[in-house]
Amino acid sequence: MSAFPKTSRNRVKRLPERAAYDKETIYKILDQALICHVGIAQENQPFVIPTIHARRGDALLLHGATTSRLLQHIQAGNPICVATTLLDGLVVARGIFHNSMNYRSVVLFGVGRVLEEPQAKYDALFALSEHIMPGRWDDARLPSKKELKATTIIEMPIEVATAKLRVGGPKDDAEDYEKDWWAGVIPIQQKFLAPQPDVKLHREIPVPSYLKNYKR
Amino acid sequence: MSAFPKTSRNRVKRLPERAAYDKETIYKILDQALICHVGIAQENQPFVIPTIHARRGDALLLHGATTSRLLQHIQAGNPICVATTLLDGLVVARGIFHNSMNYRSVVLFGVGRVLEEPQAKYDALFALSEHIMPGRWDDARLPSKKELKATTIIEMPIEVATAKLRVGGPKDDAEDYEKDWWAGVIPIQQKFLAPQPDVKLHREIPVPSYLKNYKR
Repeated sequence: MSAFPKTSRNRVKRLPERAAYDKETIYKILDQALICHVGIAQENQPFVIPTIHARRGDALLLHGATTSRLLQHIQAGNPICVATTLLDGLVVARGIFHNSMNYRSVVLFGVGRVLEEPQAKYDALFALSEHIMPGRWDDARLPSKKELKATTIIEMPIEVATAKLRVGGPKDDAEDYEKDWWAGVIPIQQKFLAPQPDVKLHREIPVPSYLKNYKR
Repeated sequence: MSAFPKTSRNRVKRLPERAAYDKETIYKILDQALICHVGIAQENQPFVIPTIHARRGDALLLHGATTSRLLQHIQAGNPICVATTLLDGLVVARGIFHNSMNYRSVVLFGVGRVLEEPQAKYDALFALSEHIMPGRWDDARLPSKKELKATTIIEMPIEVATAKLRVGGPKDDAEDYEKDWWAGVIPIQQKFLAPQPDVKLHREIPVPSYLKNYKR
């Protein structure tokens, strides 16, 4: 299966021409995003929490402290919704009503399960580390047994998912194109600056090559 | 009141030293963020939707199409949770377990009400426009009666709120500071590139000054 089914949870009703359900589009956005926002519901009260994630195959990995309220709720088998958004530009239209943004967003639905087995947790931490900083795992102190124990890992098979994307310039009312208002796009980029060494480095250590020109 | 009360919904239990409850800190993050993620709960099923927002005084404004599922749910008086996150850096620690991010996030709780009166809706659209693009309102076609009608505006008094912030370098285990792993921070910036004119501009129109060096 290379696309997710359209269900009542993920079918895009507003501007359906912006929606995508294929895995390639959805996973590319997930893999580029540094963080996501996880939603849970406790008796009609929603909570939204920012956190890091990693996709592994058709599952999303989340992690946090064993004491985390969010993870305890997920652990109990409650459904979760995860959203992430990449901003690509401000769309400046002639009509205020048509102002918009270029973006790529993903919304996922599923139920998480807790990984209990130490090796499974270790492997998940590797995936999370690689998601954020490929190459770092081989050049750092790896997680200890105690650290593994203090970490809860959630694996959520991605059951239902949608991407929503907007690209391109403004779409204005026909009669406004003749007017003298400037219109266009201000592109947005997530920029990574030169790595700043920790003041506590015990000697001068060169920035590793995998961090030097970090980008996503 | 210059700070929000700590309640069961917003009290930060994990790493409470990163939490802030004062309005100044919370509003500054809200005002800088271009988008937020809105969470709602429908019978134990959470939904998280990215959207733009604007803060006006002690309230958050959201808008969307009158047909939007999200807005209809909010309109019915259900509680919502809104989160927004600004990423400031990747924190590269000597121990994988201590890797982190520098960020500023806000989580808000409240119940929204729909603005019905045309002038109130108009004023809210002005606030949303100014939030994203200060100055544009005076240099564009303003919303028509028909456009106002097609727009739902939600005003959510901010009842409960928290900010969470991390700044600075990695915090490693004492014995790891003597090791030869590089450690530090890769700063992240949201960068706005030069405005790109719409290919459909009917003649050459200079980029307005309020858009030329757009930043937040």
